[in-house]
Amino acid sequence: MSLLVVGSIALDDVTTPYGSVKEVLGGSAVYFSLSASFFTGVNLVGVVGNDFPKRHNKLLEKKGIDLQGLERKDGKTFRWSGNYVGDMNIAHTNWVKLNVFERFTPSIPKAHKNSDYLFLANIDPDIQMDLLRQARGARFLACDSMNHWIDSKKKSLIKLISKVDLFFANEKEAQSLTGETNLKKAARAITSFGPRMVVIKKGEHGAFLFVDNKIFASPAYLLDIVIDPTGAGDSFAGGFMGYMATPGRRKTLKELRKAVAYGTIMASFCVEGFSVAGFTRLNKRAIAKRFRDFSRMTHF
Amino acid sequence: MSLLVVGSIALDDVTTPYGSVKEVLGGSAVYFSLSASFFTGVNLVGVVGNDFPKRHNKLLEKKGIDLQGLERKDGKTFRWSGNYVGDMNIAHTNWVKLNVFERFTPSIPKAHKNSDYLFLANIDPDIQMDLLRQARGARFLACDSMNHWIDSKKKSLIKLISKVDLFFANEKEAQSLTGETNLKKAARAITSFGPRMVVIKKGEHGAFLFVDNKIFASPAYLLDIVIDPTGAGDSFAGGFMGYMATPGRRKTLKELRKAVAYGTIMASFCVEGFSVAGFTRLNKRAIAKRFRDFSRMTHF
Repeated sequence: MSLLVVGSIALDDVTTPYGSVKEVLGGSAVYFSLSASFFTGVNLVGVVGNDFPKRHNKLLEKKGIDLQGLERKDGKTFRWSGNYVGDMNIAHTNWVKLNVFERFTPSIPKAHKNSDYLFLANIDPDIQMDLLRQARGARFLACDSMNHWIDSKKKSLIKLISKVDLFFANEKEAQSLTGETNLKKAARAITSFGPRMVVIKKGEHGAFLFVDNKIFASPAYLLDIVIDPTGAGDSFAGGFMGYMATPGRRKTLKELRKAVAYGTIMASFCVEGFSVAGFTRLNKRAIAKRFRDFSRMTHF
Repeated sequence: MSLLVVGSIALDDVTTPYGSVKEVLGGSAVYFSLSASFFTGVNLVGVVGNDFPKRHNKLLEKKGIDLQGLERKDGKTFRWSGNYVGDMNIAHTNWVKLNVFERFTPSIPKAHKNSDYLFLANIDPDIQMDLLRQARGARFLACDSMNHWIDSKKKSLIKLISKVDLFFANEKEAQSLTGETNLKKAARAITSFGPRMVVIKKGEHGAFLFVDNKIFASPAYLLDIVIDPTGAGDSFAGGFMGYMATPGRRKTLKELRKAVAYGTIMASFCVEGFSVAGFTRLNKRAIAKRFRDFSRMTHF
């Protein structure tokens, strides 16, 4: 099945207790599509500036990611500078330069309008709504957002959520969107907006899926070292959606649980290196091995 | 198999977002033994003052808890006043009055010295060490502690830990005891002191077991309402040790994983009411039902 992602492509400066990197490949659409590329073909829609290194295009294409929808514009690529101190669960933003992403009006190429699975990474909810209209052929719609839009465009965001099958949120987003501190209640409140499914991501504390009033709860995959948490949430979504887009998957609780498990382990690979290093050296065998490990770690 | 617990018995004042209670039954040995009583016979060693309501003795005895080791002394019972605001994971202490617990030198009754399973709840590690000497017949030794002893009697505590089979710690205790923020490394460091097993409790984020260099990770059981988190950690230990003390259990990873699951669900019953209300209305059928629910919630 074809999977389409629309989101940011960035050059990041990141500092963690394990070091600093500058101008490295990042952005929600990049993490998502690299993670999903181990499961299915991915079509990427995004924008970069004319300073975007060609070697990044090559890396993405090498992983089978279709870049027909990648616009290259005059100007600079979106840049984010952040750091993690103490609690690796919390990213502190030093600065953001939206650059070409600021006036980005994403357009889905004709060839991708019928992608079966659609993931709308965090972006203005009005733009996400327009993308839903463009991707009329999609049979499974999922989106992510962030606190900025919950604060500034809550009505648009709730309208968007009502149209999708699955909403991905982190703990704080779920709480501020619904006013519920209890996550089970928050998840139930989100499904009352319309979507059948909600995934609440808790970083190093795992994630849970709420579907048809049933819950699947998962711890994170415990690692010895977390080098850089950037992109973990989008990599989770990429593993989840990538698995669901493989042939023969049905949207049953049984399959959706496995999707959470794959999301969890893809996030664990992501955080083992700076930028996308955790994915460049990865193969399907290592994913299958970690999936078995994770199953042994969590079943009783 | 017989299970012995030594720990505090308290009268608590507790305030949570759901209300306030005064002079209610609490203390580590109480939560532990009530939780474990659903699995096996429990022998309790502790101390109360002459103000301790007789109805509490009756409640404990009704659950099959042997109170031969419960001393009643002139003076007042140990009292704790605490509250939970915002993050229900963190207890804020208003005040503590140790009262008769201050000069408590626990003595294990002759009839209980051969208890097979021993749980030493949080108390001065030198006293815990003396109790290990008294309980020579025990074949499975477990203990808990707190940051106060890690700060003030680290050497004694590490010596104690080296003598037990299992150490229970919460996230912060494991980190401050070992100087490792990564919990997998912290658990490994604790087992390097001597014990075969470590359980790290993360409150609403679940728990994990580290044994023979293998990990079992579990989320918490998600609830709609957490009324009062007091006693959750000791109830977890009670469910864990109670299950392990049922006939036929071997200390294999398979059984230990189930013990974590039982610990998790016993903690979930504990926090559904103030004081010990979650246990007084509980029965084995409800435990079995929640165990099945939890299995469905976590397996993929």
